[in-house]
Amino acid sequence: MKPVDVVCLCQLYDVHGMFGPHFAEDNPWVRLVKPEDVADPRAIRHALAFSPGPEDFAPYPNLQMVSSVGAGVDALLDHPGLDHEIRISRSIIEDQAKMIACFALYYIAGWQRRMWGYPEQQAREGWAILNLTPPNHFKVGVLGTGKIGGELARALVGLGYQVTGYGSRARQEVGYPVLSGPEGLSTIAAESHAVVNLLPLTDETRGVLNAGFFAQMRADAILIQLGRGGHLVEADLLAALEAGRPALAALDVFAHEPLAPGHPFWSHPKVMVTPHVAGDADFAVTARFIAEGIAAHERGEAPKGLVSRDRGY
Amino acid sequence: MKPVDVVCLCQLYDVHGMFGPHFAEDNPWVRLVKPEDVADPRAIRHALAFSPGPEDFAPYPNLQMVSSVGAGVDALLDHPGLDHEIRISRSIIEDQAKMIACFALYYIAGWQRRMWGYPEQQAREGWAILNLTPPNHFKVGVLGTGKIGGELARALVGLGYQVTGYGSRARQEVGYPVLSGPEGLSTIAAESHAVVNLLPLTDETRGVLNAGFFAQMRADAILIQLGRGGHLVEADLLAALEAGRPALAALDVFAHEPLAPGHPFWSHPKVMVTPHVAGDADFAVTARFIAEGIAAHERGEAPKGLVSRDRGY
Repeated sequence: MKPVDVVCLCQLYDVHGMFGPHFAEDNPWVRLVKPEDVADPRAIRHALAFSPGPEDFAPYPNLQMVSSVGAGVDALLDHPGLDHEIRISRSIIEDQAKMIACFALYYIAGWQRRMWGYPEQQAREGWAILNLTPPNHFKVGVLGTGKIGGELARALVGLGYQVTGYGSRARQEVGYPVLSGPEGLSTIAAESHAVVNLLPLTDETRGVLNAGFFAQMRADAILIQLGRGGHLVEADLLAALEAGRPALAALDVFAHEPLAPGHPFWSHPKVMVTPHVAGDADFAVTARFIAEGIAAHERGEAPKGLVSRDRGY
Repeated sequence: MKPVDVVCLCQLYDVHGMFGPHFAEDNPWVRLVKPEDVADPRAIRHALAFSPGPEDFAPYPNLQMVSSVGAGVDALLDHPGLDHEIRISRSIIEDQAKMIACFALYYIAGWQRRMWGYPEQQAREGWAILNLTPPNHFKVGVLGTGKIGGELARALVGLGYQVTGYGSRARQEVGYPVLSGPEGLSTIAAESHAVVNLLPLTDETRGVLNAGFFAQMRADAILIQLGRGGHLVEADLLAALEAGRPALAALDVFAHEPLAPGHPFWSHPKVMVTPHVAGDADFAVTARFIAEGIAAHERGEAPKGLVSRDRGY
């Protein structure tokens, strides 16, 4: 392949450091360039982007395609500085639903089996069984029962857990019921030992994890927030943890990312923070997918992850 | 029910403290008594036992039944102080295979997703993605593919992991191959990112986790030991961790339990210790199962968990 300069427009993570070495190894014709190192901005036809700033695209009048590092491209579709003629390609991550399900399972199994009590006990050479709630009495509420939530619910049912889903319409799936509406949500809040949020963000679901929801939760429940930052009223969660329900929160998404320095979540003893990673592929795989997309575009073909502005993804 | 005194013969855990309150709540006719509080040993017909000492049964000439807190009764069957006329009843734990599978999954997902790196990062307010091996490249070797190993293998295949089993005969299961013999074991040692031991303890499997096995392992692998203490040569593991493979070990069973004070595993930075809990039910459920068994015996019926000395379980 003829070398292609790809400008790296990523404010949230060190994407240049994460992906650069993998392009260099597998597809050295992709030359990932930091904006400050671009010699001639008019020569740039490709960008790699993740949460670009408002002016990030301005210097490149001949941009033809933006490859998104992530699967979500809302920020690119809504970007005022991105001409509609410019192709957007998103990363399609194989088995992403399974990966997110497994990420949730780590927290569910960890909490149900009290796995986080054992390191502390090990430190003082203690040999005692920490009592548990057996899976068939451990209720998991799965908010959002689409591709990802469905994958998680099936895995949980297979492992013997009590699952209740929450979706836009009530129904019975194999092994678990799906509730809907405000009453369904209240039931799930009140009964679940673990609540996993995997809802899409819509006008109806924005702020769904709020004071009212938390007040109904069990005092021995964990909240696992893997949806979108906009689902969670962060101040409400802080107050709720203070008030004692839920007992614990595992948060992977936030209203503002990266989570600001000094944000109370960082140091909260009842909050486990991960940096929006539940659905991540490994860097090498994503770099290869992106390189293939750029190569397809260069050959005059459509990249596999081509986004339709009409469809919105 | 007429009150029944049950003497509590358990040297390994505080079984009196764990189960006493649940008998009191659900079946107050079961009066759990510590040996030192027994007024008339000749009046004792029932014992609750877990790893009893060699002389523990001697004071009770009229013992009729021993209820085991655990599912394994080898120690009771082999106990020289237990007359063969005395009934042994074991606890049958519902969904135990699923529970053990889920316990293993916690460690597998935790290692694959580098979940143990995030708390450290959170402590310094760091927002960076820790790279991972995707499930379809993450190889899990499951030693022992019976009821428990099979349950784990199925769950892992469903979540997109690469699974290889090891069993007494080579075969192809749905979604994963099962290898056998020394060569199969070598292949699993060499390729797996996670090795889970769920083998039964036999003359052939005793000491199977030894220096030779560890020397073949990947430097980025985790050993998850949920079989029996006799499978692991503990000194070999300590030397292997020092030498750098495996990277990490999660140990639930030990040659001598409870793990002795000062044992190097307690304070080893690459060892996670749990006190033989992978297959545990919760105390309330087990206490109810045991009370039902005692009640059955008192009515002149066979308890559900009655052990056959001929069968060996």
